[in-house]
Amino acid sequence: MIELSSAPASTASPASPRSAEGKMLPGHAFEIGRDKPLKLDCGVELAPVTIAYQTYGTLNADRSNAVLVCHALTGDQFCAETHPITGKDGWWDSMIGPGRPVDPADYFIISTNVLGGCMGTTGPASINPDTGKPYGLGLPIITIGDMVRAQARLIDHLGIETLFCVIGGSMGAMQVLEWASSYPDRVFCAVPIAGAARHSAQNIAFHEVGRQAVMADPDWRGGDYAGQKVKPVRGLAVARMAAHITYLSEPALHRKFGRNLQDRAAVTYGFDADFQVESYLRYQGSSFVDRFDANSYLYLTRAMDYFDLAAEHGGVLGNAFKGTKTRFCLVSFTSDWLFPTPETREVVHALNAVAANVSFCEIESDKGHDAFLLDEPEMFAVLGGFLKGCAEHRGLRK
Amino acid sequence: MIELSSAPASTASPASPRSAEGKMLPGHAFEIGRDKPLKLDCGVELAPVTIAYQTYGTLNADRSNAVLVCHALTGDQFCAETHPITGKDGWWDSMIGPGRPVDPADYFIISTNVLGGCMGTTGPASINPDTGKPYGLGLPIITIGDMVRAQARLIDHLGIETLFCVIGGSMGAMQVLEWASSYPDRVFCAVPIAGAARHSAQNIAFHEVGRQAVMADPDWRGGDYAGQKVKPVRGLAVARMAAHITYLSEPALHRKFGRNLQDRAAVTYGFDADFQVESYLRYQGSSFVDRFDANSYLYLTRAMDYFDLAAEHGGVLGNAFKGTKTRFCLVSFTSDWLFPTPETREVVHALNAVAANVSFCEIESDKGHDAFLLDEPEMFAVLGGFLKGCAEHRGLRK
Repeated sequence: MIELSSAPASTASPASPRSAEGKMLPGHAFEIGRDKPLKLDCGVELAPVTIAYQTYGTLNADRSNAVLVCHALTGDQFCAETHPITGKDGWWDSMIGPGRPVDPADYFIISTNVLGGCMGTTGPASINPDTGKPYGLGLPIITIGDMVRAQARLIDHLGIETLFCVIGGSMGAMQVLEWASSYPDRVFCAVPIAGAARHSAQNIAFHEVGRQAVMADPDWRGGDYAGQKVKPVRGLAVARMAAHITYLSEPALHRKFGRNLQDRAAVTYGFDADFQVESYLRYQGSSFVDRFDANSYLYLTRAMDYFDLAAEHGGVLGNAFKGTKTRFCLVSFTSDWLFPTPETREVVHALNAVAANVSFCEIESDKGHDAFLLDEPEMFAVLGGFLKGCAEHRGLRK
Repeated sequence: MIELSSAPASTASPASPRSAEGKMLPGHAFEIGRDKPLKLDCGVELAPVTIAYQTYGTLNADRSNAVLVCHALTGDQFCAETHPITGKDGWWDSMIGPGRPVDPADYFIISTNVLGGCMGTTGPASINPDTGKPYGLGLPIITIGDMVRAQARLIDHLGIETLFCVIGGSMGAMQVLEWASSYPDRVFCAVPIAGAARHSAQNIAFHEVGRQAVMADPDWRGGDYAGQKVKPVRGLAVARMAAHITYLSEPALHRKFGRNLQDRAAVTYGFDADFQVESYLRYQGSSFVDRFDANSYLYLTRAMDYFDLAAEHGGVLGNAFKGTKTRFCLVSFTSDWLFPTPETREVVHALNAVAANVSFCEIESDKGHDAFLLDEPEMFAVLGGFLKGCAEHRGLRK
């Protein structure tokens, strides 16, 4: 169990965050007002914007021990506590907690729900104050840059000049790279795990399948399902099932399920879930729709597709990090075929090209992309060591 | 152009085959009558059964030069001629034709639409003579074994004792292995390409996603869409899109599309197909539904999922080929992640364990699983050489 700190008095927010379904959520909410709207990459100035976030540990007097945790596509701010909707453990309990690499005894840990999300931060399910109805597809397209710009506004608000660390996996790693590139002086060390500096053609293709699955559901209603009191649950479940396969690896699926049958001695010669892997996938699909908003899924997959850090810097990835003083530690996994090691290595090469302080570790694992969320002792050892070293440099430890 | 032979007089069929949509098709149809029904693996005796097939070349006097071509999941009997519905080239024009490894000047080439298919052979879209309505889900589940047993009935009917060769890729390779296992004396040589002796957990998972996409479409109507004059085109398109990604490789997608935009200078900040790969996938989905039956997709994916040759032989794959005299040539491709080389190697090991005559070649290609359908000179060289050698042994060449 992690002791939840109260937010510092200065961060007290007018209201608790609420989920896409309107449920009150633990944690805090910060609002970007109409007086200083958030400028999005698409050109729109968005306001008001609510950023739902959670914190663990205590900000030190120097305000120098803050760690920003960035979540992946379907994650949220509840990285290290029981999830208020599913009742499941925090998605990064293995990484964050007492005795873990990111220990709330040492750090002030901040975790936001990303812009476009559905756990309290402004997203397509949020009410558009100009219409009194949910944004739906009326919300402008969000980019990884927009997510990070919104987080930076929160960090400003918390009175933190420089984050000790920005850490995240998958889409979280994209945010880490964007942070290090856009705010080099505000990131002491950066830990992008199982990520990439751009989304590959294959990954865009898988995302497009997911979006088409959602949009093919007649209950999607052009994005206006909330207004019409329906939910595209079947389409979203199919999208999740397809995506879920890409988070695993063939060896992991083989080890976990193989061709094992589901509670039966022989195949049934039908279309029921004969195989355990079918039943598992169906469960992944049907449980996902209870906690995630279909339009958010569209927006966040799109944000990942659009991410291309080199393209934003004249086609040369190194330019994104010129003169950086941030210390980097990159991690990839051998069996991750969604964000395979060469994608991480490309970032490492770009960082080397600008003489950055960079460490890189490819971890032997058969667990696929999801390895970053799982019990991977080597990852904990690598990151624990890296963070300790950085903490010494930062003067957080003697 | 390939000269189409007329079928031998003995094979004249009462009627031309018809597509699932009722369109008259070129080629031949053979009927298994009620007097001698086809015994299926699920226990049902099915009759009547129509087998639609096409032939190229001429059967020699010894009836010793017949090559049976087995198609993949979405293929059909039109392997070496313009497709009567899409107007596209035959799906294996590169392999079959004058000067090609399988030359109609040398061989009598037979290609059937598989049982459960939708191009004239009995499948879920066929009329159930007992009800006067399409079978839909009333058709019993079909297995790879059933497909092969139906083909064997046609081969009996054509008066062919021993096939010179059985050849096919992907689901076609499964049929080849099943032929060699079930009818060892009737297969002189066997060429399974990009296949496996069993469907992996990951492949079952991808198939399940496709089936759920079809079944999630309200127009699927529990399989009775034909009776209700609708078609689950959106669900089937999503299924096809997901599957299509698995037929390619990340390097091939990167080379072909990368992150190239579709007819535009910059992203549109929307959900249109900004990227070429999105537009390509959407096209793959929408064109597929014009030529393929959704229920057939369910049945044929299920047949592949159920395929497990070792399980049918006491769990020992070698037992499937004990004492075989068939000459085998197996081919896999380096970038095929759907049926990766280790799956083929497992078959090779099993064949070696029973001292079979086996040759195996892993071909360097970045084209993924689809490589078996494409212009792969090394594959043509390997198979051309193998078939020539076998033809000499068979006395077809001096």
